[in-house]
Parts: sequence; structure tokens; C-alpha cells
Amino acid sequence: MADPTVDPSHASFIDVPADSHFPIQNLPYGVFTPPDERPPRVGVAIGAHVLDLSALADAGLFEHPLLVQHAPFEQSTLNRFMSLGRVAWDAARATIHDALRADTATLRDDADLKERALFERSAVTMHLPARVGDYTDFYSSKEHATNVGTMFRGKENALKPNWVHLPVGYHGRASSIIPSGQPVRRPCGQRKPDDGPPTYGPTRLLDFELEMGFFTGPGNELGTPIGIDAAEDQIFGLTLVNDWSARDIQGWEYVPLGPFLGKSFATTVSPWVVPLAALEPFRVDAPTQEPAPLSYLQPPRPDTAYDIQLEVGLQTPALDAPHTVCRTNFRHMYWTMVQQLAHHTVNGCNIRPGDLLASGTISGPTKDSYGSLLELTWRGEHPIELPDGSERTFAEDGDAVVMTGWAAGDGYRVGFGETRGTVLPAQPLA
Amino acid sequence: MADPTVDPSHASFIDVPADSHFPIQNLPYGVFTPPDERPPRVGVAIGAHVLDLSALADAGLFEHPLLVQHAPFEQSTLNRFMSLGRVAWDAARATIHDALRADTATLRDDADLKERALFERSAVTMHLPARVGDYTDFYSSKEHATNVGTMFRGKENALKPNWVHLPVGYHGRASSIIPSGQPVRRPCGQRKPDDGPPTYGPTRLLDFELEMGFFTGPGNELGTPIGIDAAEDQIFGLTLVNDWSARDIQGWEYVPLGPFLGKSFATTVSPWVVPLAALEPFRVDAPTQEPAPLSYLQPPRPDTAYDIQLEVGLQTPALDAPHTVCRTNFRHMYWTMVQQLAHHTVNGCNIRPGDLLASGTISGPTKDSYGSLLELTWRGEHPIELPDGSERTFAEDGDAVVMTGWAAGDGYRVGFGETRGTVLPAQPLA
Repeated sequence: MADPTVDPSHASFIDVPADSHFPIQNLPYGVFTPPDERPPRVGVAIGAHVLDLSALADAGLFEHPLLVQHAPFEQSTLNRFMSLGRVAWDAARATIHDALRADTATLRDDADLKERALFERSAVTMHLPARVGDYTDFYSSKEHATNVGTMFRGKENALKPNWVHLPVGYHGRASSIIPSGQPVRRPCGQRKPDDGPPTYGPTRLLDFELEMGFFTGPGNELGTPIGIDAAEDQIFGLTLVNDWSARDIQGWEYVPLGPFLGKSFATTVSPWVVPLAALEPFRVDAPTQEPAPLSYLQPPRPDTAYDIQLEVGLQTPALDAPHTVCRTNFRHMYWTMVQQLAHHTVNGCNIRPGDLLASGTISGPTKDSYGSLLELTWRGEHPIELPDGSERTFAEDGDAVVMTGWAAGDGYRVGFGETRGTVLPAQPLA
Repeated sequence: MADPTVDPSHASFIDVPADSHFPIQNLPYGVFTPPDERPPRVGVAIGAHVLDLSALADAGLFEHPLLVQHAPFEQSTLNRFMSLGRVAWDAARATIHDALRADTATLRDDADLKERALFERSAVTMHLPARVGDYTDFYSSKEHATNVGTMFRGKENALKPNWVHLPVGYHGRASSIIPSGQPVRRPCGQRKPDDGPPTYGPTRLLDFELEMGFFTGPGNELGTPIGIDAAEDQIFGLTLVNDWSARDIQGWEYVPLGPFLGKSFATTVSPWVVPLAALEPFRVDAPTQEPAPLSYLQPPRPDTAYDIQLEVGLQTPALDAPHTVCRTNFRHMYWTMVQQLAHHTVNGCNIRPGDLLASGTISGPTKDSYGSLLELTWRGEHPIELPDGSERTFAEDGDAVVMTGWAAGDGYRVGFGETRGTVLPAQPLA
């Protein structure tokens, strides 16, 4: 029976505990295969369940012409749905929300449809949410850029002059984006000792980078920028991103053209994409920017940041659960998503549905809020002590890195689930 | 009638002039739409014609099981054909070659099939040859890296220490790769004057970069490198690449993560992909490398470079034809394609069919062999004089940049056609 103290639009007939990441206020999208191995399709997470949107579509619940005509849920990626734009996203969200409400009978009282459309989340296989055409990684945390710059160039020269004028970013590798749960092979490559020529072998400095990323909507024609006022409508939704990094490979290769093999061996994303609409209650003002950016980077409203709590855990083979090594917040980012998108396209570069734009490492102001081992251990000078009595400067074989995050509402969480990746030993060439 | 002095395997029943880029020794692949607007399909250039491979497939000429089963020619990109690997490529090439020989009747004497399968090249519309999953751009010409390094960091510091140990490269933008003929909009962005804050506006230093690129074959699983001995079988074929560059935008943004918006507004590729098999007669020894690279970068044979003549022409609106401003050769590259592929995957990074790996600007040892305006005019200090009486330091609105290239055989050319791009005026934001 419905609890009379709860806003009926916030109650689902599916039981969702208060600490669940997936209440009716969230409704994140993902791609999954049900236990009986039929083809992948689009679903929404609700409590401990997945709602199969292709089954709802089959049952005729989606009435908006865009959703009827393009059948975006009988797809093995979210790209088609992403391409349909805000109007279709809003219509789909309204239909899904309505179907899951405690006071709506359509799905609640249709045992056959529930049987076809609801699966235990623990029993399905999750896939990458999108076929990523291009992956861009920014460098938008002032704390992170300052920390790394201080380590490598000294305090006086930490932030390069361009950093406060534009969101610095680079093209990442799309092919090696993997879903949470897929193990990560320790990469080999060239490492340069201080006192001799480079050698070939496994990275000795395997690191994570805590990031958030957003998937894009319909996009723009080549040659036509997305103005910052229009940028929000191009953001489909957000995920957690672990931008795995091999610091020794990266440090040797990256001059003058940027990171390459130190990054391209793996990037883990969480399987559930939280729509921007679900994050609307968690908007906060972005940090003040000084100097003021050029006008094409000035957003139409101040609250373009989002209050999302983030954690990274390290789980050694001896531990039963991840040990939290970092707690931070997405709101710390100096450059926001709408600024990143406006900057990315100011030269006419075209965005396509399903592109992934990641934030760069999210570090906060305190030492326990740094988003990489490089910063947390300050280049390995201050090892992290773990509850099993071991220490870590960088990730070792068998370690799992687990990232999670959520926006905290009043009595509920809009959560992102997790990205998990376990390090496999290197397989050097003979 | 067949000329008795000509090797019959080198004679086609289609007339091909000696200076054509597309004799029977070449047989490059492309994707085209015939004049009557049916869907795009795969074709091969032969003289002034295009041979429609989907029509040959319809007629049952391809008998290899891989080609029958996967139907790679009734496709709007070459990706599926690229994914089938060397065995399928060799079988297809043998069938196409046989069908075009002067002394083979199958196609020559079948008027109906010729009607269906042969089109005037001037009457078809060419498309991008592949859906590029990831685009990687290297920096493999020692002359180019030295020139640019000298300009920006001085002679003593021109080549960074890593340059002679590994093929430096970076991820490029896949979405803005465009086919020859598509105009290029002058990009806007941030430019930094020496004596003040950055300003927004159109690039003042629009440049070309003469490059060659190769499309990849089946690829590798994430975590499993492609050894240098196996790299050649992963090279499907080569194209010309113009990696358009906005030098002022690039110079301001690129520290420390590399080029981004200074490149991502457009990359033009030639529509015909010359298979590696057609370039076999033009193998030459690669330059001696000193110091010797690490063993994973040592090729199994010395002749891993290719003798391909390259030219860049600049055509102002006042000129009837491109004026050649650069003559160079692909053989000058210090790092070769098999080294680039072995390096790219040494960390386990996965390559997919249709990825594009470009060489970086190809500059030769002499001043007229530099592959960019930046080098040809030495940062604008030595303008190029054009036959219409005008001068150029960088590209102006209305200018067309035309690149071409060919390997010169005895009485024939294995050519690449051209990349052409005309500069449109900027459209700054209001």
C-alpha cells in the first residue's frame, strides 16, 4: 500500500530501499542481455530489477511518434535513442515513470507483461551503453591539473597559461572503452629510467583516474558549432569513467603530442547512463572563473555544475570489499560540461550521437579527495595503507579498482552503480 | 588488340593511358554511388571507369567462400571487406584482375554485365571509403619533426629525446574525416597574441599537412599486441591524407595534452584505397635507424618503406590548375607503417577493421619537399609566389589544396588520385 507521506510520483510498485542507486527518481538507461540469452536490448534500472524497454515497446506503451517510428529500444546500443533528442528522451522518461508508479495499474497489474519485462539485475549481463564514435578526455579539475603540474614542473609552473582560458582536452581511444567488470591487462611498453635508454616491459606505475563522462545526443553538422546556450540539450546522460593510466609509459611518450599508449589500453565505464533530467534537482553553481572566459564559454545560468558524491575503492585479493581511498565530488570541476561541449565544437568539429566526453581526473581540495594514485601517494612518496596490512603506491596485479557515485536526495539516491576493473598480470612479448 | 610486347597480365580490355593512376596493376577500392542514385556500393577504379563489385558479385564471379558468405561489396563502407583479412583480399583481387584482363572473355564479352558493372568515373559520387572507428596520427618524418621543433624550440632542442626511440603519435578526431571534394570551413577558436590575452576569431594560420594513411584489416583482441612480423597482414591499403591544421589555435591549446581543435575541424582523405598488394613492386629499404629501436620495433625485413611520389598543389580562385608547392616521397619516413602498428598495439590497444593510421606530415630533405605551409614558408617568413602574381604564407579563403601521389612503374603508375579541399570563409558566432 502506498505510504501517504510519500509524493505518489516518487513511489514505485517495485520495492526500492532508500540506499539503492536506482529509485524511480533515477531511471538510468543501459544495454543488457536477459538470462535466456536473447539479443541485447535497452533497459532501465529500478531497484534490484531491470525493466526491459523493448518489452514495453512491444506492448505498445510508448506512444510518442519518434519512439514508435525509430524503435530505439530493440537495439544493442543506445546510439539510436541518443540520436532522437530531448523531446524523445522526455517522452520516454514520462512513459517509463508512469509505468513504474505505485498508483498506475498498466504494468503493476499486468502479470504477463511484468513476467516479460522485469528481470533481476543480478541475473542479466550488462554491455557497453553505446558504440562510442569519438572519445574525448578533458582535464577540467583545477586541483588535479595543479597537483600533476606541481609534481612534474614545480609549483611556479604548475598550471600552463592556457588552462584558465579554455577546457584543455585531447582525443582518447574509443576502441578500448570497456564495460564495468571486464578485467584490465597490465600494459607493456617503453619506460625510461632516469639514467639510461628506454626499456620494454610491463608498466610499473599502473594508476586509475576517477572521472565522470557524458554521452552526447543528436550532435551538429561539421562546420556549425553548438552554442553554449544549446549545449545542455546535447547531453544525454552521465556515467562513471575510470581512465586507466600507465604513468611511466605516459611520462616518456607524451611530449609533444599528448598521452597515447599510456591511456589507450583500457577505459572502464559504468553500464548505467543517468539521464540529465534525473540530475536536475542536484544542480549547483559552478566555481567562479577568474579570469572570466571568452563569451562563447559563458553559460546562460550559473548552476551548470552537479552535486555528485564520488568514491574510489581499492580491493586487494586479501580484502572482502573495496577499501575507500578517495572521496570527492563532481561539483569541484572548474570547467563544466556545457563549456566543454561549446569549446569542443567552436571550431566546427562535429559531435555524433553516443560520443563520450569525460571530465578528466576529479580531484578535490583535500588530500583524501584526489582522484588518482599518482596524487594520493604523491608520486609514490606516501603509500596508502590497506586494512589487510599491505601498502600501495600504484595498482598491483589482482587488485580491483571500484568507483561509485550518487547524488543524495531527501531519503533517496540518484546513483551511478559502479565501475569495477581487476588488474591481470602483463603478458610481455617473447 | 593485345600488344605482344605487353605482359598479358598487365593488359586490360579497358583502355588505360600510361599516365592514368588506375591501370590494371593498381585496382584500388572505393565506395561510390552510380549516377542513377542507387545505394552506395564498393567499386574498383580502372582507367576512366569504376567497376561495380556488387554487380560482379551478383553475377557470381566471386567464388571464394568468404566473399560469398559475407557479401562485402553490397556495403556502404569497406569495413566488412577489411575485416575479412588477407586471404579474402587476395581472392578478390585475383578475381577482379582476371575479369579485367584483355585475354579473359568473362566480362569483356558480356555486354549486359558491362552495362551493369562499368560506370564513367566522372559520373559517379565517391564517399568515404570506411567508417573510421579510431583515427591515429603519427609524427614519423624526421625532417618534419626537426623543422617544427627548430621553429618552436630552437635547433638544439628540436627533436625530443623520445622521438628516435618510438613513433610518436596521438589520437585524432574520427568524426571530421571527410572525402576529397568536400569544402573545408575556416575554423574559429582561441588565438593568443604575444602581448595579451587570447581572443576568439577565425584562424589566421590555416595550413595543410601532406600525409599518407593506411586502413587496417581484421585487427586484434584488446590485450593482445600485433607483433611486427604480423603487422603487414593488418594493412589493408593506403590513401592520401590532408591533416588540415590551424596553427594559431594549435599553438595555444596543445600544451600539455597535444593537438585538439587545431586539427579536429577537418581531415580530408582520397576516395581510392590502394591495396598493399599493388605497392609490392615499390618496396624500398627504410632509412637506417640510429639508435637501433627496441626489438618489438625491428621489422623482419629491411624493405618496409614504399617509393611513392607525392605532390601538393595550391589553386587560388585566379588559377585554372593547382600550382605545385611541394614535391616529396613517402620513402623519406623514418618510422614505417609496420613499426607504427606494432607500437600502437604493444600496450594491448585493439585495432578494428577500418581504423585509419596516418603518417604525420611527410617532409623531405630539401626546402621544396616540405609537407606543410608552416615549413615551406618557414612560419610565414618566406611567402610562396604563385603564377597569378599573388603570394601565400597560409591558405586563404577560396584556395584549394590538392594532393596527389603515385608509384612509378615501367610505363605505368599506381596512383592515389587526389585529395582536394577548398577553403570556405569562417562563420564566427554572433
